[in-house]
Amino acid sequence: MPVAKKIQASMEKSSWIRRMFEEGIARKAKFGAENVFDFSLGNPNLEPPLNFKRALIELANDPSPSLHAYMPNAGLPATRKAVADYLTENNRQTFSPDDIVMTVGAGGALNVVLKTLLNPGEEVIIPSPYFVEYNFYLDNHQGVPKIVKTKPDFSLDLPALENAVTDKTKAVLINSPNNPTGKVYSKEDLRDLGELLSAYSRKLGRPIYLVSDEPYRKIVYDGIPVPSVFDAYPESFVVTSFSKDLSLPGERIGYAAVNPEISDKGMIMGGMILCNRVLGYVNAPAFMQRAVARLLRDSVDISLYQMKRDMLCNGLSECGYEFEKPGGAFYLFPKTPIEDDVAFVQALQEENILTVPGSGFMGPGHMRIAYCVDDRTIEKAMPGFERVMRRYKK
Amino acid sequence: MPVAKKIQASMEKSSWIRRMFEEGIARKAKFGAENVFDFSLGNPNLEPPLNFKRALIELANDPSPSLHAYMPNAGLPATRKAVADYLTENNRQTFSPDDIVMTVGAGGALNVVLKTLLNPGEEVIIPSPYFVEYNFYLDNHQGVPKIVKTKPDFSLDLPALENAVTDKTKAVLINSPNNPTGKVYSKEDLRDLGELLSAYSRKLGRPIYLVSDEPYRKIVYDGIPVPSVFDAYPESFVVTSFSKDLSLPGERIGYAAVNPEISDKGMIMGGMILCNRVLGYVNAPAFMQRAVARLLRDSVDISLYQMKRDMLCNGLSECGYEFEKPGGAFYLFPKTPIEDDVAFVQALQEENILTVPGSGFMGPGHMRIAYCVDDRTIEKAMPGFERVMRRYKK
Repeated sequence: MPVAKKIQASMEKSSWIRRMFEEGIARKAKFGAENVFDFSLGNPNLEPPLNFKRALIELANDPSPSLHAYMPNAGLPATRKAVADYLTENNRQTFSPDDIVMTVGAGGALNVVLKTLLNPGEEVIIPSPYFVEYNFYLDNHQGVPKIVKTKPDFSLDLPALENAVTDKTKAVLINSPNNPTGKVYSKEDLRDLGELLSAYSRKLGRPIYLVSDEPYRKIVYDGIPVPSVFDAYPESFVVTSFSKDLSLPGERIGYAAVNPEISDKGMIMGGMILCNRVLGYVNAPAFMQRAVARLLRDSVDISLYQMKRDMLCNGLSECGYEFEKPGGAFYLFPKTPIEDDVAFVQALQEENILTVPGSGFMGPGHMRIAYCVDDRTIEKAMPGFERVMRRYKK
Repeated sequence: MPVAKKIQASMEKSSWIRRMFEEGIARKAKFGAENVFDFSLGNPNLEPPLNFKRALIELANDPSPSLHAYMPNAGLPATRKAVADYLTENNRQTFSPDDIVMTVGAGGALNVVLKTLLNPGEEVIIPSPYFVEYNFYLDNHQGVPKIVKTKPDFSLDLPALENAVTDKTKAVLINSPNNPTGKVYSKEDLRDLGELLSAYSRKLGRPIYLVSDEPYRKIVYDGIPVPSVFDAYPESFVVTSFSKDLSLPGERIGYAAVNPEISDKGMIMGGMILCNRVLGYVNAPAFMQRAVARLLRDSVDISLYQMKRDMLCNGLSECGYEFEKPGGAFYLFPKTPIEDDVAFVQALQEENILTVPGSGFMGPGHMRIAYCVDDRTIEKAMPGFERVMRRYKK
């Protein structure tokens, strides 16, 4: 076999998602892109804020030397300082640049944290439904995912999480606001999770870490707060990116921050900086590090996503779809009226509506609708959503 | 232990290099940066070409939508097309965009290729001295390095390479022009290596791949040619970056290209695209992909590096240093007059001259001098080089 066995298996496994993706491309070619309603990807449709554009132009015109040179693997000192200041402003803790590693997006940040922490065979508990790319990230470092269902409203099921702890548990990985459900975990849930992890850390005589993936932190609605994991638990990391709130997913820029109160901080940060290097990232892209340092308090206009959420929720509710109204992110995760979510998603595809089966997120009986799309797409897809629901509803 | 055992061990192992690095920083603080002669890092001192600057300004002012959005994991189609056209221009083969994956630098490209190919325990043969970061890249994917010494002139030792082939050999990884030696492998050596690999591939009933890491391809002197691995062997990959020839190491932009004649190309490219995604890179940074597409035929002024090489070689030769005059890259790898290269490098450090012991590249009894520095640094360091040589020479 020319490629590694694992890689070949992964390619085969992902091929039905790819087939759906290709079917979407074929439909766009056949019916015209404007007649295909693509809710399949979390690719933000809003342009980056004007301040980002201004920053790019200023930075491109900066005559200083060495702007594109190597730097410390943790990132540009000025950018790390800016991130630390921003986090200090928004948290109870005081952050220093030494608590920050700039990364190639949140994907890079997660790989850096996981490689730093995981010995082969160690387990990471993940509430489901979840972004299944995490499986690859764990496998990259020979970690083992332990998947624990959330409650029907997608909030954390603390007794189930407790049940999943073993002597191999190294970390719990959460994602709030959540992809694919849009759920924002409450302060009480995080506090309880923190207490649970404290108790088991004492029992095991070593910390179980809490890693929070938060690229959607700024994308929340109706003024709902996104509570801090740093407050809930000292042995915690936040990984994030500017992909969603600044609409920069192609630029691969994000960071990992450790709780300033984490134990063994020196060793952990040393490990993360080493891993950022040896994973081949080396450092986060220099130009975008300089850009985002100026944009930490900016974001796209979140109210536009809120209007899309409301338009979609109202429309689907009228058609008889059942769902938890999301507090954040730009995904809706409705129940499919039949158990077989793949069949339902295929029926929608025949109406030129592209969504992703919940099974793809370990949330069968649901589908994910990414509503980071034009308002017109939502509007024009609604009759199709209605027709398919009418056909399947008991 | 808070961090993975392997990560802790790596941190401890690299700590003497770090101590030297920190000693350098301390010396700069004490004596003033202008009085410390830092030849320790391959951080190009030349600024990127003016065309790069112009491209940045134009791209920053581009009002088109979706410039920072997600894209195919292989990279922007226009950039892949530009790279394919460039490679077609400079090789006997005809390249298509489907032969190219844009990556987060050559480090990213190497990790993508290695993860695609390696099953746990499979071996990669590497001629030494070499860039030991490769060890980490192999270990990331549970590959095993098999190190084979080059000849005294740093050219490939074909019988020794042949000796190292086992039934676990998956690939040979070469780097030409070479870091740390500056050696450029000859057409004949590559042809012989290709024939060797063809013979053993037939024997094993599966290809042994040849991976060539070529970030220094444009940095060559006296018109010396850098022969193509694509011509030497069909089952081959080139990984490279724009870090050195455009002086952009902080931007993390490069690519992997497969030989258009490689077997199982579809599966290999599919694997590489998957690996670019699941390693957390996702795609190479969008903005720099657009920039480098316009700069494929550009480079910094290589004649400036040639002058530095000559100044350094002439000076050191007069002091009695022995070395192979490098044909490319910006490193000189002289013999140390005593066996203990670390001791000699420490003696140079007392003269405020910072170099790296050859042992750090599996080339003991040598030291690496990175001459991508100001001419003045070379000039002013020469008396120190002389004093230390005089002290140690038998």
